[in-house]
Amino acid sequence: MQAARLHEYTEEMDSALSIEEVDDPEPTRSDEVVVDIEGAGWCQTDNHVIEGMWAQYMPQDLPMTLGHENAGTVAATGGEVTVVSEGDQVICHPVMTCGLCRPCRLGDDMHCENVQFPGLSTDGGFAESLLTNERAVIPLPDGVDPTDIAPHADAGITAYHAVKGAVGELNPGDHAVVVGIGGLGHIGLQCLDAMSATEITAVDLKDEALSLATELGAHHTVDPTEEDVTSEIDAITDGRGAKQVLDFVGSDETAALAPDTVAAGGDHYVIGYGGHVHEPTQALVNGEFSFTGTLVGQYTELQELVALVERGDVDLRTTRHDLGDVNAVAERLEHGEIEGRAVITP
Amino acid sequence: MQAARLHEYTEEMDSALSIEEVDDPEPTRSDEVVVDIEGAGWCQTDNHVIEGMWAQYMPQDLPMTLGHENAGTVAATGGEVTVVSEGDQVICHPVMTCGLCRPCRLGDDMHCENVQFPGLSTDGGFAESLLTNERAVIPLPDGVDPTDIAPHADAGITAYHAVKGAVGELNPGDHAVVVGIGGLGHIGLQCLDAMSATEITAVDLKDEALSLATELGAHHTVDPTEEDVTSEIDAITDGRGAKQVLDFVGSDETAALAPDTVAAGGDHYVIGYGGHVHEPTQALVNGEFSFTGTLVGQYTELQELVALVERGDVDLRTTRHDLGDVNAVAERLEHGEIEGRAVITP
Amino acid sequence: MQAARLHEYTEEMDSALSIEEVDDPEPTRSDEVVVDIEGAGWCQTDNHVIEGMWAQYMPQDLPMTLGHENAGTVAATGGEVTVVSEGDQVICHPVMTCGLCRPCRLGDDMHCENVQFPGLSTDGGFAESLLTNERAVIPLPDGVDPTDIAPHADAGITAYHAVKGAVGELNPGDHAVVVGIGGLGHIGLQCLDAMSATEITAVDLKDEALSLATELGAHHTVDPTEEDVTSEIDAITDGRGAKQVLDFVGSDETAALAPDTVAAGGDHYVIGYGGHVHEPTQALVNGEFSFTGTLVGQYTELQELVALVERGDVDLRTTRHDLGDVNAVAERLEHGEIEGRAVITP
Amino acid sequence: MQAARLHEYTEEMDSALSIEEVDDPEPTRSDEVVVDIEGAGWCQTDNHVIEGMWAQYMPQDLPMTLGHENAGTVAATGGEVTVVSEGDQVICHPVMTCGLCRPCRLGDDMHCENVQFPGLSTDGGFAESLLTNERAVIPLPDGVDPTDIAPHADAGITAYHAVKGAVGELNPGDHAVVVGIGGLGHIGLQCLDAMSATEITAVDLKDEALSLATELGAHHTVDPTEEDVTSEIDAITDGRGAKQVLDFVGSDETAALAPDTVAAGGDHYVIGYGGHVHEPTQALVNGEFSFTGTLVGQYTELQELVALVERGDVDLRTTRHDLGDVNAVAERLEHGEIEGRAVITP
Repeated sequence: MQAARLHEYTEEMDSALSIEEVDDPEPTRSDEVVVDIEGAGWCQTDNHVIEGMWAQYMPQDLPMTLGHENAGTVAATGGEVTVVSEGDQVICHPVMTCGLCRPCRLGDDMHCENVQFPGLSTDGGFAESLLTNERAVIPLPDGVDPTDIAPHADAGITAYHAVKGAVGELNPGDHAVVVGIGGLGHIGLQCLDAMSATEITAVDLKDEALSLATELGAHHTVDPTEEDVTSEIDAITDGRGAKQVLDFVGSDETAALAPDTVAAGGDHYVIGYGGHVHEPTQALVNGEFSFTGTLVGQYTELQELVALVERGDVDLRTTRHDLGDVNAVAERLEHGEIEGRAVITP
Repeated sequence: MQAARLHEYTEEMDSALSIEEVDDPEPTRSDEVVVDIEGAGWCQTDNHVIEGMWAQYMPQDLPMTLGHENAGTVAATGGEVTVVSEGDQVICHPVMTCGLCRPCRLGDDMHCENVQFPGLSTDGGFAESLLTNERAVIPLPDGVDPTDIAPHADAGITAYHAVKGAVGELNPGDHAVVVGIGGLGHIGLQCLDAMSATEITAVDLKDEALSLATELGAHHTVDPTEEDVTSEIDAITDGRGAKQVLDFVGSDETAALAPDTVAAGGDHYVIGYGGHVHEPTQALVNGEFSFTGTLVGQYTELQELVALVERGDVDLRTTRHDLGDVNAVAERLEHGEIEGRAVITP
Repeated sequence: MQAARLHEYTEEMDSALSIEEVDDPEPTRSDEVVVDIEGAGWCQTDNHVIEGMWAQYMPQDLPMTLGHENAGTVAATGGEVTVVSEGDQVICHPVMTCGLCRPCRLGDDMHCENVQFPGLSTDGGFAESLLTNERAVIPLPDGVDPTDIAPHADAGITAYHAVKGAVGELNPGDHAVVVGIGGLGHIGLQCLDAMSATEITAVDLKDEALSLATELGAHHTVDPTEEDVTSEIDAITDGRGAKQVLDFVGSDETAALAPDTVAAGGDHYVIGYGGHVHEPTQALVNGEFSFTGTLVGQYTELQELVALVERGDVDLRTTRHDLGDVNAVAERLEHGEIEGRAVITP
Repeated sequence: MQAARLHEYTEEMDSALSIEEVDDPEPTRSDEVVVDIEGAGWCQTDNHVIEGMWAQYMPQDLPMTLGHENAGTVAATGGEVTVVSEGDQVICHPVMTCGLCRPCRLGDDMHCENVQFPGLSTDGGFAESLLTNERAVIPLPDGVDPTDIAPHADAGITAYHAVKGAVGELNPGDHAVVVGIGGLGHIGLQCLDAMSATEITAVDLKDEALSLATELGAHHTVDPTEEDVTSEIDAITDGRGAKQVLDFVGSDETAALAPDTVAAGGDHYVIGYGGHVHEPTQALVNGEFSFTGTLVGQYTELQELVALVERGDVDLRTTRHDLGDVNAVAERLEHGEIEGRAVITP
């Protein structure tokens, strides 16, 4: 089959991956599942993998097929699989877990002690087929198209997971700030609106992003190119700050907003990444706030997100691209030229 | 009366405060309380106030009497005070709160919108008497000496508050790390031991501090001058890391321990301060941990700590000093020469 | 002034209260507030007070003016009141609290150790003026009419409090059941819809109530006069049961629904009352569910509910009645003939 | 092999089970595990199964081998088992779960949608060998004897699970009451003491049970045959009631204690069973307390309990009996004549 593979880390996005012929995957264990890919979302993390930013955090044996936002149709199953059968349409939770270690037993899929992460540590879904396992697949409700929903497999679940943490702290009348209304942020904003009665402020550099935010439920918007973010948020929140800030950017600049925008006792969720947190410890003490990292999400959270999609609470903006266009997509994302989420359709 | 007052910010601890005569405080509102001070703990924060580190966070009108860890005997009460009467022995929660704003209504005393902080924003307890209010005083159980318990008013409640946050995440078999077994840390360690069945590792540069930690309940100790902290904690925790780290130091070095010592999904509590948090946002994402600032604690938490003291679960190490010795105490603390907690007895 | 007072417990609703002249209240403490009543909601609990059902739970010194859902305009204030001034429009939290006992310090207003409950333990708001205190009043946002909002002071906060407990357990895709779409239930249903993305089933005996439920956001309705409630809920929830059941009726019949309608690990909130819980302890063990009583709610919860009202998330159905009509209202409520909530306008 | 089997429901404990020869179990799926039983605890629930009390809650196909508190040595494993190998000593979580349904994914083993419960729905451990699966076995730490620890597989985990729920609500100075210091209660009391700094009151009819309670950490004891339980608890708690009551008996009498012993906002955990909860819904509303059923516990909770045992925090009182003595054990338990926990050693 055809697959888009990374042979060496590079900054050159326009020639990063090679399209080549590889063996078709087959189940060898009783719980394995092969999925014919109908949609595989392209993520900022794919660019970061290409640059080698994940090499220190994740074992990576190049060449490797990228692609960790996968959905499609079950093509084959191991001998004891019961959750799905051949022909079922599924979305894939991004990681393959053992179901036996303590984190798995606590529902904490991302920290499985035997985790495999297709597209980051094993071959992913920018290919005609993907090898995964029974614990990673969620059957789709009738009428939900795998290509449309694919980005929820990572962008969606990551945004949902962070929002789920935040809503527990948000009462009616409290304020939340969503920083970055891109692939993840526009999902997070909708989840926040569906799951709470909080006042939402969206922050983004682009006018179209702020318009989209307003359309999707934001009550206030702030454009850092024209306004001072901290004084705007101070005004919006009557000087109290935002109880929860969801930072889908994770740059030096966005992390630095925390001391002056997070309310006492609140949290600044670090979801996007690329920059640094740099603050005096006294600032954290005085404001009694946290920087809280979040990483993807649980299988059960992906189920919950699928339920939100089925209810019509989350609308995903996507564009479709052929497998052969992966490098062009990578290049355009690097320059902020992708609207919504790009989905590869092998 | 005599009071130890700061006239200007300085790095010279040995001449920082002047002992001088000021007017005796009197209640002017119906809820005010005057306490004759029998013990006022000297805190690292007093040194930081002297250096001017709090000027940007707190309105300070110099000259000001320092001292925010106060206990003593009620000398006078406003007309509608019911919680205490003249002659009662009390420990003082460090801040005076209004009881009417939303944070107060939620029990979150430290973030009262009308807060006054004797010793940081108004005159404190390094004096013969202190003006505070009914919402700040807790009557002492019989047999508890005000001078002995005074440091719990800030050191104790601060350590307790952080530990209370941590124990909710600590199940039997989980690991916690206490960094810095000084004035706060030795209290925190005992609270942790009394309130959970967690495995405790103490980290400190001084042998005596580590011996004290073992005596007070630590199961493991690590000395950074002789051992590599992250590899030791890795070994102690079987490679899983510590679910909760309580950092009573807050230096660059201790904050930098987080990515390699905190377990996935865990928290690094920033309690001490003075240095910086400096990490790539990707490190927080990959390890899914938080840096969580904590600031003193609630009135109800001080009640809970008094209950622990009454049960015999927390043993405080103190030394006593005359009001005239405040500058000598400041100087010795600056050089790490105070054992346990110094208490001023005006 | 005129007041509607109970002189003895009775089953005769149509002559229960006497309208009579009493002294105008005046502030005697520094924190007291007198409110000229513009609206006072009539509650099923008023009928229960008349019947003597609260005599064993609450000290009641008859004659007593009833009325515990109060809103109006501040007429006078004690000498240290800062939250409101004469002329401010306010809604009154139902109880007067001390702000000093441990429950108050934890935000738990209903369990204040020095609580006074106007309309249940002291004179209430079916009168021209009410004596309450600063900790009980919430200033109304501009444009919110006191008469319109009065029932939120008890019906609203009680519904909100229970829903707030429930939403913490309700993820997208989970089911909640609201039993009884009357004065409280129609508010609870709207709060549930605004604060979560749960699937909502409404249960009521009356067609109009079920129609209202659908209009206000219920996804499913069940009429026990025509359908078997447990088998309907079984079908609606795919055999899993409802994670949370909010029982605004509290009769023998509604409490008996729990073992067959509540999902494993879920809760049956007892909000309405009048009947009994009667179950084998084995049923609770096998289904691992709870019967959880709830009582009114916190001051901060009333603030949150006012924020929901201001957002337009909660629409209250009321009818207005003169003070002289109190007995007619009581009689009609007893026979289920009040639509929405009756508000007395003294 | 030999097994103790139930052929029909009966009240005659002294002849309830037949010892007979059955086929040895063998793994047929890739994840199955056969354990040679070294200890199988006898539980009050075994008596209840014999009486038929579980027939309405659990599918039971008689004849069936009883025994759900099992520990022993792995004798055989399916082809993909990795957690244990032949010869490993293990304790068995009481249920076999699928690891795939939503409750399993949330860690909620007891509510697995494909659960099998050896000893209640399939053949259990009063036999030489038991068929279970990889998700049910926990390897024992060195030095922990399977026969000694067997009762923790159900009595222990059940007590631990309830206590874990309770300790989250118990701050220093709060009160907890443990009702029934028998097989489960004496474990629960020790867990409570190890995991919190709460004040513990033990209630039991037998002097030896109360002596044991004191020895194991109870601060107060109440004997209902000589004292009025509610007035004693009122006195012990200064009129506030107990924040959490753990009812290991579950009779009419113990359930009826709730309204007068549980503090406002607290919980009465129903762990033991046999009687009824019978209360006016108004009592739950007025006291704002819950009756909360609890059922066994999670696999991860059994891991945590094993950690407590390894720390020396929980001491189990057991007696050992041959497989042939099962009916005598059942008879003696029925008459309250078993000290601690009886363990069958097939």
